Amino acid sequence: MTRIDDLPIRDELRGQSPYGAPQLDVPVRLNTNENPYPLPEPLVRRIAERVTEAARQLNRYPDRDAVELREALARYLTGTGGHPVTREQIWAANGSNEVIQQLLQTFGGPGRTALGFEPSYSMHGLISRGTGTGWISGPRGADFTIDVEAARAAIAEQRPDVVFICSPNNPTGTAVEAETVLALYDAAQAARADGAGALVVVDEAYGEFSHRPSLLPLIEGRPNLVVSRTMSKAFGAAGLRLGYLAADPAVVDAVQLVRLPYHLSSVTQATALAALEHTDTLLKYVEQLKAERDRLVTELRASGCQVVDSDANFVQFGLFDDAHATWQAILDHGVLVRDNGVPGWLRVTAGTPAENDAFLDAVRAVLKESKR
Amino acid sequence: MTRIDDLPIRDELRGQSPYGAPQLDVPVRLNTNENPYPLPEPLVRRIAERVTEAARQLNRYPDRDAVELREALARYLTGTGGHPVTREQIWAANGSNEVIQQLLQTFGGPGRTALGFEPSYSMHGLISRGTGTGWISGPRGADFTIDVEAARAAIAEQRPDVVFICSPNNPTGTAVEAETVLALYDAAQAARADGAGALVVVDEAYGEFSHRPSLLPLIEGRPNLVVSRTMSKAFGAAGLRLGYLAADPAVVDAVQLVRLPYHLSSVTQATALAALEHTDTLLKYVEQLKAERDRLVTELRASGCQVVDSDANFVQFGLFDDAHATWQAILDHGVLVRDNGVPGWLRVTAGTPAENDAFLDAVRAVLKESKR
Repeated sequence: MTRIDDLPIRDELRGQSPYGAPQLDVPVRLNTNENPYPLPEPLVRRIAERVTEAARQLNRYPDRDAVELREALARYLTGTGGHPVTREQIWAANGSNEVIQQLLQTFGGPGRTALGFEPSYSMHGLISRGTGTGWISGPRGADFTIDVEAARAAIAEQRPDVVFICSPNNPTGTAVEAETVLALYDAAQAARADGAGALVVVDEAYGEFSHRPSLLPLIEGRPNLVVSRTMSKAFGAAGLRLGYLAADPAVVDAVQLVRLPYHLSSVTQATALAALEHTDTLLKYVEQLKAERDRLVTELRASGCQVVDSDANFVQFGLFDDAHATWQAILDHGVLVRDNGVPGWLRVTAGTPAENDAFLDAVRAVLKESKR
Repeated sequence: MTRIDDLPIRDELRGQSPYGAPQLDVPVRLNTNENPYPLPEPLVRRIAERVTEAARQLNRYPDRDAVELREALARYLTGTGGHPVTREQIWAANGSNEVIQQLLQTFGGPGRTALGFEPSYSMHGLISRGTGTGWISGPRGADFTIDVEAARAAIAEQRPDVVFICSPNNPTGTAVEAETVLALYDAAQAARADGAGALVVVDEAYGEFSHRPSLLPLIEGRPNLVVSRTMSKAFGAAGLRLGYLAADPAVVDAVQLVRLPYHLSSVTQATALAALEHTDTLLKYVEQLKAERDRLVTELRASGCQVVDSDANFVQFGLFDDAHATWQAILDHGVLVRDNGVPGWLRVTAGTPAENDAFLDAVRAVLKESKR
């Protein structure tokens, strides 16, 4: 039998494993930050209608520029992000992972570097490596916020071509202040001797769940600032794989130099358009999840856990001597949470009230057992 | 206004334009090798059913490994490709472009090279560049077949890490003999001093339209041979963006090291599964298109054109002093064909009988005008 290492794969891939959370069959799965609420039935019907229409022309290539979809995303951001944007400022792809991959192919790549403040969304580093971009692990404070002076120093020293700022940060949960982003943006521009500046990507995958307003208005007058978003979480559409970005129209033009032609299928475009028609309903679920997220924070703290302030649909909690053993103990109570490899901490997704109760009961039981 | 060149994009992207055929609004479009037959209405309804089911769980991530879909693709290839394959030998992605991108990220990339025999599918070179893989233009004979000795010499001299063989070749139309592929495979293995060999990718995007059997059986016992396919053409589903490959299970394991997690949406998987249920109906359209393709060859030759033997759903015809002027003249008669930049030649997609008649009338009129 041929094994991977018998094949002429790239040296840096040897011995690696595919990225992905363990997929286990347990009653309560709160490990991948999915929205626990299925799409409402009227939206499901609307998706079927829109996809039927698209299927009747499926023999033709999709709209390569996804004009109608980008228009709808621009309307959504204009209505919710505190800043008017047009479709020329929007680009969409198969999940925000593909958006990030296209940005790195355009602004990173061989001979260039990207910097993120870790722990953060691990795909930033993985996609950097996948695109031949050198990865630099930048500093984060003990409370998991970004220390502006330390971050500026890292940027000045490392002169990265791309800087990732995840807000709210995954897996730790807290949103970044606008002042911090501005300070890092200025540092990233100044650090580049060639005057071209560095691209700053603000990853707002969990933006809709934040106590703070979106950082979207910061793109105004800053052509090297990109805000990336996804329909996976707030729109309850992880299965759809629809990510997008807002930025200067020149950035949108630039990523089209590397995007695979017709990357976004007709059925994806049709389904996303249907979901955007139901924005108001879906954002009501977001409000419910924010309330449940706040309840998780309060009750975990009452149970004696440390909890990082959360602006997302998940909560990072600890502090455990052996986080992985605690992860296993919670799993033994039928609840799957995530061990992101942050020493001492675990991450739980806000689920339905019943799922959150089951999780809280599991944690309390585990804490009690450990005191025996 | 910020322009692309004001941004810190990679140097090699400066001055480039996005890839893509001109999208013009004309009565008869025979320029992108789309299948002219819309999906039959029972299949459209089945897609709606399958997508409705998927939409009810759209809040959850898709099956990351697309197990059911790969199973169905394996059944299809086993039934039509002359060689039994299992789902462990199949991988799927958003269009065969993404399959090729994943292969190049795994087996090509910075410091490595890929070789194709040009003119051929131009995305092989473009995706190579997009993944930092050096691109080598290999030789093709004056009749657009691959000259085995010249090709072996190029491989021995250039020692590429990846070799592309497009069969039937796009844009020229002819399929490659199995003996040629075997000779080039052996050359590609021998050329690599490290003994690891090179990956050989047989791009069979138009395989179902060929007079020759599929090259699929060649994967047996050759772990570095990959056959890539698409549902865009034979399945009449260009809008779906579903490409796939068949190879040794180790290759399937290897591309999972670079694939973006959850790259294939639930709606894409559902739609592809529905289409695969209707394989028999869709393959009847393929038979119609093959007959029309053969008619195009015969009638173009009768009109005095030179025509390259075609195993695809398109035909390369010439020979014109100024192919672009002829392209424009045909367009002036309301028919859009493709100028792929092959000097003296144009490419026309086999459409419906009525579309092909309109095209043939346009060509005859243009030839008549040019003789005045």
